[in-house]
Amino acid sequence: MKAAILHGPGDVRIEDVPDPRVEQPTDAVVRVIAAGICGTDLRGYAGQPGPVQGPRCGHEFIGVVADVGDEVATLRPGQVVVAPFMFADGACDTCARGLPTSCGAGGMFGVAGDGGQAEAVRVPFADATLVAAPVDEHDERLPALLTLCDVMATGRHAIRRARVAEGATVAVVGDGPVGLCTVLAAHAAGAGRVILLGRHDRRIAVGAGFGATDVVRSRGPQAVQDVLDLTGGAGVDVAVECVGEADALTTALGVCRDGGTLSLVGGPHGALDQMACFLRNLTITGGLAPARTYLDDLLGEVLTGRLDPAPVFDLTVPLTDITAGYEAMRTRTATKVLVRI
Amino acid sequence: MKAAILHGPGDVRIEDVPDPRVEQPTDAVVRVIAAGICGTDLRGYAGQPGPVQGPRCGHEFIGVVADVGDEVATLRPGQVVVAPFMFADGACDTCARGLPTSCGAGGMFGVAGDGGQAEAVRVPFADATLVAAPVDEHDERLPALLTLCDVMATGRHAIRRARVAEGATVAVVGDGPVGLCTVLAAHAAGAGRVILLGRHDRRIAVGAGFGATDVVRSRGPQAVQDVLDLTGGAGVDVAVECVGEADALTTALGVCRDGGTLSLVGGPHGALDQMACFLRNLTITGGLAPARTYLDDLLGEVLTGRLDPAPVFDLTVPLTDITAGYEAMRTRTATKVLVRI
Repeated sequence: MKAAILHGPGDVRIEDVPDPRVEQPTDAVVRVIAAGICGTDLRGYAGQPGPVQGPRCGHEFIGVVADVGDEVATLRPGQVVVAPFMFADGACDTCARGLPTSCGAGGMFGVAGDGGQAEAVRVPFADATLVAAPVDEHDERLPALLTLCDVMATGRHAIRRARVAEGATVAVVGDGPVGLCTVLAAHAAGAGRVILLGRHDRRIAVGAGFGATDVVRSRGPQAVQDVLDLTGGAGVDVAVECVGEADALTTALGVCRDGGTLSLVGGPHGALDQMACFLRNLTITGGLAPARTYLDDLLGEVLTGRLDPAPVFDLTVPLTDITAGYEAMRTRTATKVLVRI
Repeated sequence: MKAAILHGPGDVRIEDVPDPRVEQPTDAVVRVIAAGICGTDLRGYAGQPGPVQGPRCGHEFIGVVADVGDEVATLRPGQVVVAPFMFADGACDTCARGLPTSCGAGGMFGVAGDGGQAEAVRVPFADATLVAAPVDEHDERLPALLTLCDVMATGRHAIRRARVAEGATVAVVGDGPVGLCTVLAAHAAGAGRVILLGRHDRRIAVGAGFGATDVVRSRGPQAVQDVLDLTGGAGVDVAVECVGEADALTTALGVCRDGGTLSLVGGPHGALDQMACFLRNLTITGGLAPARTYLDDLLGEVLTGRLDPAPVFDLTVPLTDITAGYEAMRTRTATKVLVRI
């Protein structure tokens, strides 16, 4: 089969690899219909530090079950399934506590095992990992479902971890797919005000559609001042860092009110000033999103029409042209790319 | 009047200073009955970094109102009052949100204005800062009330900020006064298990009386292993850092379960591994305790006999012999020293 292989910075190729097959009785093999390119993939492509350094690429995918092992009880060939970006055994204490990202037997697709940007994927612990969606593979909601693998689950996680309360003021630092999904999650959680910090017209338009009430286009100290001005000098109850860069972290810290909460889902690239956090009584939360934990609820919301994160995708490429997708994201000409398999 | 003056590391002297007097109409002058020596004072005495570098010493005190300014409405001379370790105006947004530690007009006794280890103190914003206690100055509960200025309020803050739930497992790193008060607060909050990490027999005995269910006397990696063993390998729901040293922070991080909460009230001296916190979905909270916010409740609990943190004190010295008190705490021969004025 064909799969995307990262050879080094700027060098992703579609190559022939062995067909995946059921190796463990708890495995499923999924024929991929659609895969996403994530900011995390982009780090690997750009040669930046991060978990995704290839060779297999992609951890966001939906597909059709092609084969299952003898112990797979809940899935059958032909079902459309959504995969969280990490697999996990579903049997350990951390899985039981809703934290499959900490499962000792688990791993991230692409980093451990097959990547999602491929014609097929072997999925370990299929019963615990995959969620069947009652749709066919031509359903128009597939792009929305594809966001549930990672970015929409991450946005929901950012907001849940920060315990965003009805009426709260939330700043979302970053207008990438995670930032936009965080806007959507904040709005859904009843935030009274959602301030999106970003600079890209198209992304900001999506953010407005997702429920952003205010937009701050400046950066650095000016962005902090602009958010303070918007909030009467007080700062926000919750600031969500959705970029994973030191500058964004500094901005999130600056716009958060004393006693407020910083939710970090962009990956903490940059050191926090611990003493400032202490003196200002800030709570630091967020973390790697246990997407599987949110999948059932999110799936229900998409299928009933209450949630539609699909607008984060603005470019579709075939697997054979995946380099164009990576380049479009690297140059910011696309917000997020859907790879049709 | 006499006041404790820090001249440099290891050099605290009782000296004559001008008598405090009402300077602003919102001031009160308090004749001090009893003052505490805090771990924070000890940092200054030991020449370690920290907010307390003199010259005035002490931020924990109770006393009798001696004089009030024209705009002081709720206090009258003769009342016994408990002071939180910081004064604040009570009028700003942060005070309204229960965070007087972030009040722009506020400050810490000793650092800003008079110190508590003195015969008298000028208290700014007296109505907002002081809490009158319906006791006389010979009441046997004065030591318990003196803990409310800082260490017991800090313990309560550590537990409240971490949202310790009924039945939760809590590790308290450090058996100093703040650690012991945190044990008491965890117990009062309904924690199912309170693991005290400490090495001093007398302190551990107090901790057991305060509700510690387990004691770990080891340090470093062995302490982490011992706590993991006590919790079936899982780690604790909440780890509270009550020391303010890098080793204690590392221990707290090590004993906390993935998805759990680190509450830092010892002062964050040491850098957290942000990436580990992110991958493990840890929440970092705690912070400088807004003691005033907890004072009414804590006072009620002490006066009704439900709370008695007095056993943290194990040495009383007169103001004239305050150096003996500092030395006893520096050498760990005393847990906490009460200075009788």
